[in-house]
Amino acid sequence: MNDQNGLTIAVVGATGAVGQQIIETLMKRDFPYKKLVLLSSARSAGKKVNVGGNELIIQEARPESFDGIDIALFSAGGSVSMELAPEAAKRGAIVIDNTSAFRMDPDVPLVVPEVNEEDVRSHKGIIANPNCSTIQMVVALEPVRKKYGLKKIIVSTYQAVSGAGNAAIEELELETRALIDGKPYEPKVLPVKTGEKHYQIAFNAIPQIDKFEDNGYTFEELKMMNETKKIMHDSNLHVAATCVRLPIETGHSESIYFEIESDDVTADSIKELLKEAPGVVLQDDPANQVYPMPADCVGKKDVFVGRIRKDLDNNKGFHMWVVSDNLQKGAAWNTVQIAESLVNLGVVKKK
Amino acid sequence: MNDQNGLTIAVVGATGAVGQQIIETLMKRDFPYKKLVLLSSARSAGKKVNVGGNELIIQEARPESFDGIDIALFSAGGSVSMELAPEAAKRGAIVIDNTSAFRMDPDVPLVVPEVNEEDVRSHKGIIANPNCSTIQMVVALEPVRKKYGLKKIIVSTYQAVSGAGNAAIEELELETRALIDGKPYEPKVLPVKTGEKHYQIAFNAIPQIDKFEDNGYTFEELKMMNETKKIMHDSNLHVAATCVRLPIETGHSESIYFEIESDDVTADSIKELLKEAPGVVLQDDPANQVYPMPADCVGKKDVFVGRIRKDLDNNKGFHMWVVSDNLQKGAAWNTVQIAESLVNLGVVKKK
Repeated sequence: MNDQNGLTIAVVGATGAVGQQIIETLMKRDFPYKKLVLLSSARSAGKKVNVGGNELIIQEARPESFDGIDIALFSAGGSVSMELAPEAAKRGAIVIDNTSAFRMDPDVPLVVPEVNEEDVRSHKGIIANPNCSTIQMVVALEPVRKKYGLKKIIVSTYQAVSGAGNAAIEELELETRALIDGKPYEPKVLPVKTGEKHYQIAFNAIPQIDKFEDNGYTFEELKMMNETKKIMHDSNLHVAATCVRLPIETGHSESIYFEIESDDVTADSIKELLKEAPGVVLQDDPANQVYPMPADCVGKKDVFVGRIRKDLDNNKGFHMWVVSDNLQKGAAWNTVQIAESLVNLGVVKKK
Repeated sequence: MNDQNGLTIAVVGATGAVGQQIIETLMKRDFPYKKLVLLSSARSAGKKVNVGGNELIIQEARPESFDGIDIALFSAGGSVSMELAPEAAKRGAIVIDNTSAFRMDPDVPLVVPEVNEEDVRSHKGIIANPNCSTIQMVVALEPVRKKYGLKKIIVSTYQAVSGAGNAAIEELELETRALIDGKPYEPKVLPVKTGEKHYQIAFNAIPQIDKFEDNGYTFEELKMMNETKKIMHDSNLHVAATCVRLPIETGHSESIYFEIESDDVTADSIKELLKEAPGVVLQDDPANQVYPMPADCVGKKDVFVGRIRKDLDNNKGFHMWVVSDNLQKGAAWNTVQIAESLVNLGVVKKK
């Protein structure tokens, strides 16, 4: 919405997989902005992007680019955020950062509006958008935590390649075509672009997302574990994750085991609760083969939940299957939603 | 091995994905057989198969087909086993059955030779081969159970389509090609051929393998849960499974959380144990991006284990990633291995 009394918004990383979705999402929403400034690295500067019928030229992101910006949506990689987010904040912009650069900084709120929207009020110039896998999990589990208490989460992920950017999407497409035609293909991107080894993703499963820590967990796994505790404000929560990359273009799935505090809760009570939960769509009717799948979630903003069932050995244990578009709720939509929270809660005011 | 003093072996379901692998495995092994009889449904009877340079004609499986058979390897679906396995046993053959028809029958040993080889001695004519997902899990966990005690398993699977037979392999190939060419494709096989609805498997994840029970679990999940307890002879073991079908042709992966009885065991001790374990290949060197992947396991008999790490909240909890060729150790190789156990333990004697 082009609103003459509205806000000036910058998108940093406008040509990336997430940046493109942020621009589209801003267009679709009734977001009160006056001016949209598209920024990127020097490499992409000068490119033209059609935004709602207007042609915008992408400019190189520099400290001065943020003069006069109200909200800056960063999605251009951790090093760009590290360098420029503090510069943007210094110039009065509120940064909503999609990278992992500031997520665990105690001065930076880490926000999923369905869970901890009020945390945006305590920002000091930077608000972090959580990891895609974390977001869909906490949206599905927060209603359970609020009503029944949450003790433990064990999650195994089924993650799409688009979480690793446009180069990974292209690799999956080219590699799949090559393999199916019986031709060779040399992987160059997955699992980690800057890693030493690259592996086939087509018709394969790679149990590595991001680099390894010395304790044997990947950064992706530790992100899910640490961010969940921060967003839910519960440092005693037990969270363990195994993160796996799969030959799926878009849509992350998660097999989640969780234990609650309350006794004698039924799977049906959990289903009733999630049917009404914000941001959640319940798809849980096994008799009719109804459950969430990544191919069905693409382009949608919701978190889809199904296969809710009680553990047969533990009265406080449950299993469920959670699917969401990792570029939407996992990134672009949650980012825009935080910007909307800033406006709705009056943290940022229109002129 | 064509051994004139050897056994007479029948393979039932000789044209199926598993049947073909059983024949190949018998050829590769030094198995002491005199005669190989290939059987199938009436539909496939008459087809010719090249076996070690000889052309064998597949015959229709009937009760009389089992006269004079020492060991009959069944892999033609549950209904064929239900009908013909007791007939074969009545005629003196020892049946090794690859279907789920008799697995939980208290009179039928359920055998993974690395775990409970001695159980073959108690057969009453039929021995069952466990579900593919169960086999690779118990091979990886039995050494842990024996040394440290095992209390609990929570497993999420990443299963290949070949577990659903040749039609599912063809569906993945045709559907992938169609989608990548932007053409429509109507799924007809997965997740369950006889089910009401069929879903896209290419670039997707389907959280359904086999049909649903009323408690919200699939039969595949309940198989893993019940078979594991039976093979490990521990009805008190807690096992929970979530089974998911993925666009992978061959090779099942499993993200396994387990809790042991012993305190203060390190991840390194578990690695040392599994490095020496029968049927296990340890691939666990995160610093060098070494971990098992389905694309690497195809055609191999071993169970590959990696990503072993301690749970950060529970001193008795561990996570690991287990991969194996579902047609080999998950089916054909375990079946032939049971036949070898029958010979090696003297349960079946050469003439």
